[in-house]
Amino acid sequence: MEKILHIDKNKISAMDKRYRANFINSVTGFKSANLLGSISTDNIENLAIFSSITHLGSDPSLLGFITRPNSAPRHTYKNIRDTGIFTVNHVNENIIKEAHQTAARYDESISEFKAAGLHTEYLHNWKAPFLKEAQIKIACEYVSEYQIKENDTVLIVAAIKGVYLPEKALNDDGWINLEITSGVSINGLDSYSKPKLIDRFSYAKPNMTPSSILKKD
Amino acid sequence: MEKILHIDKNKISAMDKRYRANFINSVTGFKSANLLGSISTDNIENLAIFSSITHLGSDPSLLGFITRPNSAPRHTYKNIRDTGIFTVNHVNENIIKEAHQTAARYDESISEFKAAGLHTEYLHNWKAPFLKEAQIKIACEYVSEYQIKENDTVLIVAAIKGVYLPEKALNDDGWINLEITSGVSINGLDSYSKPKLIDRFSYAKPNMTPSSILKKD
Repeated sequence: MEKILHIDKNKISAMDKRYRANFINSVTGFKSANLLGSISTDNIENLAIFSSITHLGSDPSLLGFITRPNSAPRHTYKNIRDTGIFTVNHVNENIIKEAHQTAARYDESISEFKAAGLHTEYLHNWKAPFLKEAQIKIACEYVSEYQIKENDTVLIVAAIKGVYLPEKALNDDGWINLEITSGVSINGLDSYSKPKLIDRFSYAKPNMTPSSILKKD
Repeated sequence: MEKILHIDKNKISAMDKRYRANFINSVTGFKSANLLGSISTDNIENLAIFSSITHLGSDPSLLGFITRPNSAPRHTYKNIRDTGIFTVNHVNENIIKEAHQTAARYDESISEFKAAGLHTEYLHNWKAPFLKEAQIKIACEYVSEYQIKENDTVLIVAAIKGVYLPEKALNDDGWINLEITSGVSINGLDSYSKPKLIDRFSYAKPNMTPSSILKKD
């Protein structure tokens, strides 16, 4: 019989800071793995890994992510506010170590693209750098932000202005198969997983059992 | 040579509504897969799948998720506002079809637990129902909300008040191995994947290559 732990609020409060960061960062489930590309007004390119990028809505097409603008250097936030634009680039299984390395606290004058051994790409006159190694790349424009007063973070809301992706990953109903692009997910602060597709289901309706809508080759 | 598509903002705007929903819901990467448990003031239990639950911070321990309170029935939102509490329960590979089914628009008087063939569990006097079939369960308390005016959604901020999890999934540094709990991730609106751990890396520092910190059995 496996043992189930109950970690109550007192145990959570009593945790060592680093232990709690690992625990709480893991406990909400798997997260997206993206690299944000941006550029400063001095033309210093910046690349940083984010695990909080989330779909906000598709009409208008918006995404959001959480950042902490008031502590430590936050070059990504400053660049986005200064220039109004950035890119979102999917991490894939071939670049997880490089992606992780972009989290190091480099000086503002250092490009994390170079420091991590990755490469920029400029596409269709978008002023922010894309990541050459990414298979899915999104051009984003800053729309607004919401201060989350409970912990001094900010939710950035951005508009999706363009997407690059391999044709083979795009299904005829608009669904993108992220397994085909070797996408990864993040578990906690520092671990990377490769999701394998189990199934895709029909739209859920009362009194109907979902059926598989996955196209078999 | 594989073909890369460029889907610009005009193409995104011109997409059929359902196509765009599939596309934009997939394009931000893999998402978390959780079932929110709640209960109405009339004691009707509710269970609903969410893919937007995200870590907000670990000190204090907060999570957030996006919901749309002003359109269609949103029983989860109403219950959370009425009672101030809810539960977050990880979807695992054994219950993906049942989890998906909770998205159907059931009448307010119907418990999605029963309708989907799942089971409630009440633990340590927490008034909201947990999902018996989940391996990781979180007791949450409503803290605040932020109206996202761009698309009439709301970011709910909640405090993590307690966690249940198998002892074998908890590492000695607080990291939870979600592969051990058979956790899944969501790709788009309707597809479920099983992430397999690739590696876990040391804290990133400038001029140091990340090394694996995964414990081998």
